[in-house]
Amino acid sequence: MDLNPATPEFIKQIGLAIGASKILPPEPRYLADPRGLRQGHAAAVVLPRSVGDVSAILKLANAACVGVVPYSGGTGLVGGQIMPDGALPLVLSLEKLNAVREIDVRGNVMVAEAGVILDTVRAGADAAGRLFPLALASGGSCRIGGNLATNAGGVQVLRYGNARDLCLGIEAVLADGTIIHALKKLRKDNTGYDLRNLLIGSEGTLGIITAASLKLFPKPLINATALVAVASPSAALDLLNHMRDRLGDTVAAFELINGQGLEFLHETMPQIAVPLSGAWLVLVEAAGGSSIVADMFEAALVEAFENKLISETLLAANESQRKAFWTMRESIPLANRKIGYVSAHDISLPLNNIPAFVSETSAAISAMDSTLRVNAFGHLGDGNLHFNVFPGVGRKAEDYDDLRRRLVRLIHDRIDKMGGSFSAEHGIGRAKVAELLRYGDPGRLAAMRAIKRALDPNGIMNPGAVIAV
Amino acid sequence: MDLNPATPEFIKQIGLAIGASKILPPEPRYLADPRGLRQGHAAAVVLPRSVGDVSAILKLANAACVGVVPYSGGTGLVGGQIMPDGALPLVLSLEKLNAVREIDVRGNVMVAEAGVILDTVRAGADAAGRLFPLALASGGSCRIGGNLATNAGGVQVLRYGNARDLCLGIEAVLADGTIIHALKKLRKDNTGYDLRNLLIGSEGTLGIITAASLKLFPKPLINATALVAVASPSAALDLLNHMRDRLGDTVAAFELINGQGLEFLHETMPQIAVPLSGAWLVLVEAAGGSSIVADMFEAALVEAFENKLISETLLAANESQRKAFWTMRESIPLANRKIGYVSAHDISLPLNNIPAFVSETSAAISAMDSTLRVNAFGHLGDGNLHFNVFPGVGRKAEDYDDLRRRLVRLIHDRIDKMGGSFSAEHGIGRAKVAELLRYGDPGRLAAMRAIKRALDPNGIMNPGAVIAV
Repeated sequence: MDLNPATPEFIKQIGLAIGASKILPPEPRYLADPRGLRQGHAAAVVLPRSVGDVSAILKLANAACVGVVPYSGGTGLVGGQIMPDGALPLVLSLEKLNAVREIDVRGNVMVAEAGVILDTVRAGADAAGRLFPLALASGGSCRIGGNLATNAGGVQVLRYGNARDLCLGIEAVLADGTIIHALKKLRKDNTGYDLRNLLIGSEGTLGIITAASLKLFPKPLINATALVAVASPSAALDLLNHMRDRLGDTVAAFELINGQGLEFLHETMPQIAVPLSGAWLVLVEAAGGSSIVADMFEAALVEAFENKLISETLLAANESQRKAFWTMRESIPLANRKIGYVSAHDISLPLNNIPAFVSETSAAISAMDSTLRVNAFGHLGDGNLHFNVFPGVGRKAEDYDDLRRRLVRLIHDRIDKMGGSFSAEHGIGRAKVAELLRYGDPGRLAAMRAIKRALDPNGIMNPGAVIAV
Repeated sequence: MDLNPATPEFIKQIGLAIGASKILPPEPRYLADPRGLRQGHAAAVVLPRSVGDVSAILKLANAACVGVVPYSGGTGLVGGQIMPDGALPLVLSLEKLNAVREIDVRGNVMVAEAGVILDTVRAGADAAGRLFPLALASGGSCRIGGNLATNAGGVQVLRYGNARDLCLGIEAVLADGTIIHALKKLRKDNTGYDLRNLLIGSEGTLGIITAASLKLFPKPLINATALVAVASPSAALDLLNHMRDRLGDTVAAFELINGQGLEFLHETMPQIAVPLSGAWLVLVEAAGGSSIVADMFEAALVEAFENKLISETLLAANESQRKAFWTMRESIPLANRKIGYVSAHDISLPLNNIPAFVSETSAAISAMDSTLRVNAFGHLGDGNLHFNVFPGVGRKAEDYDDLRRRLVRLIHDRIDKMGGSFSAEHGIGRAKVAELLRYGDPGRLAAMRAIKRALDPNGIMNPGAVIAV
């Protein structure tokens, strides 16, 4: 069904329903994405203050067939929050729906509204002596509703899972204004279909999550951290299995680092210390409630060294050294941006396919143009790599404009062939709709369309994102 | 839409499509439930040998509007596999779709077809040096497809999660025969709606899971186990938090045991050793890859004793003592059955509400009839209790027939009021459809119906289970 633009008359109706003070003109900050790559448009921004407001807005928008673009922290990288064209929509910002409703320390649950900033959720848990493990670089501006809508990942996934694994229940509003009250705090509940997981990761195209009950964890009192040199991604994978055999779920992070990334770091940010170098490094960390974890960690690394899984080990002797390891790791993406990508990929693969993917794809890229440089790094423990391609020394990304399309196709085709995903963390948004149509299983796409039609028959929810009605 | 019975002509059509040898008459074993409480009916049993067979059967059934009852191991307790009346359906048994397609030790994934028996999955993982943690009393006969369709729980949920948490990808067939190829082996994949979790737990009413990729884990080399006496469920909850603070996710089991259950055990199965008694016990176990886990476990228990969280501790000195503890725990349900329930409930609650629920509900039951006895026990770490009510000494369950309805209402009303679930593990099946309609959130029920209509518009999938079209 064709959508109608949000007219002044329609916006007046919304104002009558929720109060005119909750409507803003379409300020630029709601229409630009964080990298300045996309520009959206909208008739107005609505700022609901309750789930009832959200319901009233969607009911009216659905009746009038007006598109609604949900806006959380605005930090998404695939344009899910930016509608560039089509009938003028409303932007629905969750920023005023920002109460922490409850922290249940004994039950290890926090109930937070969608607009609570991620770092505020984390700080609230911390102040209560608990950990909320979702951690992202954008934590100071992204909001928990958006984190759930996009099923955010981050550096703690290996141990604690993605955003969906951290959520016990949701309150949400569907396109027709129906409120779903499912803010349960239960670890087990087998009473019907899993709407929670359906809405999580649906990027605002099926409904709007207005609040969530979130799992809290014991604070790890001890972190044991090391930087180790390995021969290859294959050796890194063996090391991962070894460490998990010895330490189980106390292995909290396992980050693969490529020598190319360290060179870029040295070139663009020489002030960042690089305590160990090599063709392939791993930053491995265990976390637990007792100092014995550190003993177990050291013993496991010694064993790995004796078994020739690693060639060099640097244990963090104190917290400031640990921070230096992480600063190095976390500066790599920034160094990459300073160098300038030809293309960048947020991919995942079955763990066992990663070594072959990295070597074969790097070789195929060299064969395409021998000047290209590859930096493959990231959350190896989750099978999730940043696989980025850069210009040759002394050249610029634009020099490869003619080749970029073929390059992306080469990389995505190989991912598909090896059972991987072309979007491990970032989602589909609007930037990857065509890739989803190309690589998505037809049966799965048909079922997605059927569900979209069932829950949003007029197609008002985040039009143009993920999948069409 | 009204369904049609499966006629001999229709069954002949199915035979032409998949081969007549894959069709059986409706043998009694497919029509009786494990407790002998329900009796189903069917025109025939079909035994597909491939996902293509399943697709062909559903396509024909959908075109003819004939109901299909999926049958896995047949061990479900809520009648999900038993259709007692209505137009004669087909029973679709998954037992011949029983290949383990792949065990990827390095990638920690197994791909198994739906008909593989749970204990075969576990044994396959074990032989490969890995753990598949789903463990159920019915493991020798239930099948992994049914475990996923019902999102099975068990005794390892605290550490490893429910069945849905153990599955990375599925292959499935929808009502119209559409095959969903989503057998990915990825830890992270944000490319569209979460159909996997939608089908998991939908009890065969949205489609049929034909294969799954399953997460494997390191085998825990060390189990440290203790039986401890605590003053109350509230003290047990404090102990749980203490143990998790100290041991993190190495706490693998945390089972609450009630003195009433131990009395029933003594009365009906005196051969079972009861190494420790008291009003409330906890069976707590930590599991890990190093003997240091046992040291950490002991230290944490000593600390708990010093802080008066526990009044008595019995550490398992060896594997046979550990087995004795578990035998005691696992014999309690059998002893309960020998005594004979007035009513039995598979419930969950927010952890922090459990102490109040147990004491207040027990008091209300006493007020209703002071002869009734309550045994509340189970997976406290998951907030999941078996809350069972028994006749007074020297009386029989039938003596309370007049009161049973009120009793169930009292218990379920309190669960609902305290944010709990009336079906934590067992699902809805057919036995709890009315309870779902009574206690389910109307918005959630509306969304469930919309999804059911979207994916199964003719209502052929497991008719009468979970929710009507």
